Amino acid sequence: MVNVSVLGYGNIGFHLVDAFEKSNVINLIQVYNRHPIKNKSFKAELVNNLNNLTKADVYIIAIPDDAIKSFSSQLKLDGLVVHTSGSVNINALIGKFAKGVFYPLQSFSKDKVVDFKKIPIAIEAQNLSDLNLLNKLACCLTPLVYKIDSKQRQNLHVAAVFVNNFTNYMYRIGENICLKNNIDFNILKPLILETAKKIETLPPTDAQTGPAKRNDKQTITKHLKLLPSEFEEIYTLLTKFIQQHDKEL
Amino acid sequence: MVNVSVLGYGNIGFHLVDAFEKSNVINLIQVYNRHPIKNKSFKAELVNNLNNLTKADVYIIAIPDDAIKSFSSQLKLDGLVVHTSGSVNINALIGKFAKGVFYPLQSFSKDKVVDFKKIPIAIEAQNLSDLNLLNKLACCLTPLVYKIDSKQRQNLHVAAVFVNNFTNYMYRIGENICLKNNIDFNILKPLILETAKKIETLPPTDAQTGPAKRNDKQTITKHLKLLPSEFEEIYTLLTKFIQQHDKEL
Repeated sequence: MVNVSVLGYGNIGFHLVDAFEKSNVINLIQVYNRHPIKNKSFKAELVNNLNNLTKADVYIIAIPDDAIKSFSSQLKLDGLVVHTSGSVNINALIGKFAKGVFYPLQSFSKDKVVDFKKIPIAIEAQNLSDLNLLNKLACCLTPLVYKIDSKQRQNLHVAAVFVNNFTNYMYRIGENICLKNNIDFNILKPLILETAKKIETLPPTDAQTGPAKRNDKQTITKHLKLLPSEFEEIYTLLTKFIQQHDKEL
Repeated sequence: MVNVSVLGYGNIGFHLVDAFEKSNVINLIQVYNRHPIKNKSFKAELVNNLNNLTKADVYIIAIPDDAIKSFSSQLKLDGLVVHTSGSVNINALIGKFAKGVFYPLQSFSKDKVVDFKKIPIAIEAQNLSDLNLLNKLACCLTPLVYKIDSKQRQNLHVAAVFVNNFTNYMYRIGENICLKNNIDFNILKPLILETAKKIETLPPTDAQTGPAKRNDKQTITKHLKLLPSEFEEIYTLLTKFIQQHDKEL
């Protein structure tokens, strides 16, 4: 049994608490939140005052990135204190406790059910026994556990911006072009899913297709004429990059 | 029964022939290819000479875009002749036959099994009876049939470049960042799949998250410092666009 308390009840805190309460091998001791949590019942104890935190093996801070430093400095705890952020260094945790990171690599929203078994968790600690403890905890939730240091995790967070946020923006441009031309955006959804699934078996470099890859100048020119002018700059830049990238490989 | 012949045996031709040969409601009459097709047996007749084409309801031209015009001008056929291209106008078909388009919106490769039931087909014809015939043919393969005119289809093709080719390039950048930092790229695959699945229930505009969306300047600055310099231009441009786009909506 691992004894855990979760500090913060935002998107990540919400889903972690839910997963821990359902687990047979994790004992959720307390959930801290600044404000009372309404219309929810927990097996764990709810606390609003940091002085009321009791002993646990791991305390998981699940609050906004820029609040981690000052929040952690108020904690008078023994045990291992971890944050859940992709972009914050382990050293942002200020205190005499042992430090670590427990970063689930997924975008969370409260209204969407989460299956932790499919979510990778990146863990980091300052010594091997703490790392093993975090590994044990993460393995209760998912088989996808990765040991990643702070520098790697910050780079991973940048990579995630490309494959998640910027990819979603590509979908928005697709949707926008459809809207402007009275085309049902649903027609693109199977292609979007296929594009994501393809790289499960094929590295993205090998999966690259399209007019830029083929250096099909005629189609590129035609596309630039058709395209709403606001998206020309993106089309041109990404076409240039695909062509340069290919030369370098 | 719809009687069909397929002209061309590249990636699309290969998969169409395969699907038609398995169908109980489509009668594949002939497969034309310039060169003999080796190590393959068909129920349909194989021909290498356009003069040997016999009567069919629909002739499907599945050859490279820039060859469609001159190839079609050699055809002495009755019946409906269609091409399968996303970016070529219906009027690129030259001849006295009836004209149409039968565009399956997916990227094909011969070594990957295709499930047509999940592939949208965009159809276009010059009159209602031909359109109904194409609709009947497409509905034998997939429930996802869309009536799309040439202008819409060309715009759809541009949109597909964004959601497929450019999205795959975002994955390549993610892969590149992982490689450079000794991170296993597999850690990003669940997020990639989740990002694609999310828009099945949420419009991409509502699904947008990330530092650009939150206008989180601190994280953006940190990312730009970390990022390999070659990708700075893309990060900056897409961040700017996400922020502008949000203001306009």
